[in-house]
Amino acid sequence: MSFSIPSSDFSLASGTETEIFNWAKSHFRDHTFAKDERVVTRPGLLYFVERGAVRIVGKAQVNVIDKQSRHQLTTAESEEVFLGFVGAGQPFEIVSRYPFQLQAYAHVEETEMVWLYWEDLEHWPQFRAAILETFRHQHQRKLFWLSILGQKRSIDRLMGFLVLLMEEYGQPCPEGYYLPYSLTHAQIASAIGTTRVTVTRLIGKLRQQNSLFLKDDHLIGLPSLFLSQN
Amino acid sequence: MSFSIPSSDFSLASGTETEIFNWAKSHFRDHTFAKDERVVTRPGLLYFVERGAVRIVGKAQVNVIDKQSRHQLTTAESEEVFLGFVGAGQPFEIVSRYPFQLQAYAHVEETEMVWLYWEDLEHWPQFRAAILETFRHQHQRKLFWLSILGQKRSIDRLMGFLVLLMEEYGQPCPEGYYLPYSLTHAQIASAIGTTRVTVTRLIGKLRQQNSLFLKDDHLIGLPSLFLSQN
Repeated sequence: MSFSIPSSDFSLASGTETEIFNWAKSHFRDHTFAKDERVVTRPGLLYFVERGAVRIVGKAQVNVIDKQSRHQLTTAESEEVFLGFVGAGQPFEIVSRYPFQLQAYAHVEETEMVWLYWEDLEHWPQFRAAILETFRHQHQRKLFWLSILGQKRSIDRLMGFLVLLMEEYGQPCPEGYYLPYSLTHAQIASAIGTTRVTVTRLIGKLRQQNSLFLKDDHLIGLPSLFLSQN
Repeated sequence: MSFSIPSSDFSLASGTETEIFNWAKSHFRDHTFAKDERVVTRPGLLYFVERGAVRIVGKAQVNVIDKQSRHQLTTAESEEVFLGFVGAGQPFEIVSRYPFQLQAYAHVEETEMVWLYWEDLEHWPQFRAAILETFRHQHQRKLFWLSILGQKRSIDRLMGFLVLLMEEYGQPCPEGYYLPYSLTHAQIASAIGTTRVTVTRLIGKLRQQNSLFLKDDHLIGLPSLFLSQN
């Protein structure tokens, strides 16, 4: 799969951003999170990553027919699914709706965040409009992501998934582009609906055929030929 | 999996809508499509389903390493993936970005559509804001959809997918809720990353245990107990 880099930039107007972030901080609406610390979110709030990165994960409460009684519904918690990153300068919101539960975690050390109520943004209509444009863009990206997850072969889902992330967050290096955030094989597996063992096997195979490399032994990279329109 | 019905309603303000749709029609920007007719879309345009329903599908151009030469990239077209419906009164846009290609098809007979340029909406800022809110909502729904597709077992993906569609489009009937649009097993399979044969087998199994029914022999329905918060 082949992409053009860099992706279109939807970063928000920085002058207003600084003003609004300062306003939020003066109202004690900021916090610095440790790696993997959960961000306790509330509905109606809008969050901004000022530094670092956040990962979004999803779960669902699954009702299953009880095998013994055959008609009894029991509730099981589904696996946690990796749904993407939110990088510095980007907004997100967490809307959970039974039985779906979305959650945010700081993905790197010292992730700084500020938050606002949507209503606060009435004072900054242009900024509000820019945020809605960001969500419009993210919606498009998720449609591409869904196109990837509909592929039947795990290797197609894996490559498509990595290329999508690389296009959005990839950093150039001599060998191509690498993802600046570490991801475990279990996290990748959860995103593409396969097992950790399969991801490990496929990554080994891709490395062997030079379709994938590791930077600093743990960051995933892809050669440029997978990432440019050729 | 269990859901509450009905889902939050994001339909657009109908007075303005009528005015805008009439304006579009007076500018010859409307068309009625036959079932499965492709809607030829252009970037920068915003489409509205006035009657009927549209289905969105996605494809990706996949670059694969040629097995013979081992280093040659060849391009293959991926399978078409079902990405959702757009019902009456709802807007959509088609942003394709190499190697991803999104397409829209009329899903039912006599699907009526109108279209506008985004710039046209500068005259109707409230309406524009309502559309962006719709995309914000759709973005949230796609995160739920991705949570479903991360599940490892095909049956969990199938049930989650059906419940999501039912929550958005389901119509009540004595047995529960049914989806008013027909979907082939191949279309369902493309959405949840499995084969048509597997979908046919799982639907048979779900029918046997009364977790799924068919209305008028072809429309999928789910008993209420899967669709209410209990």
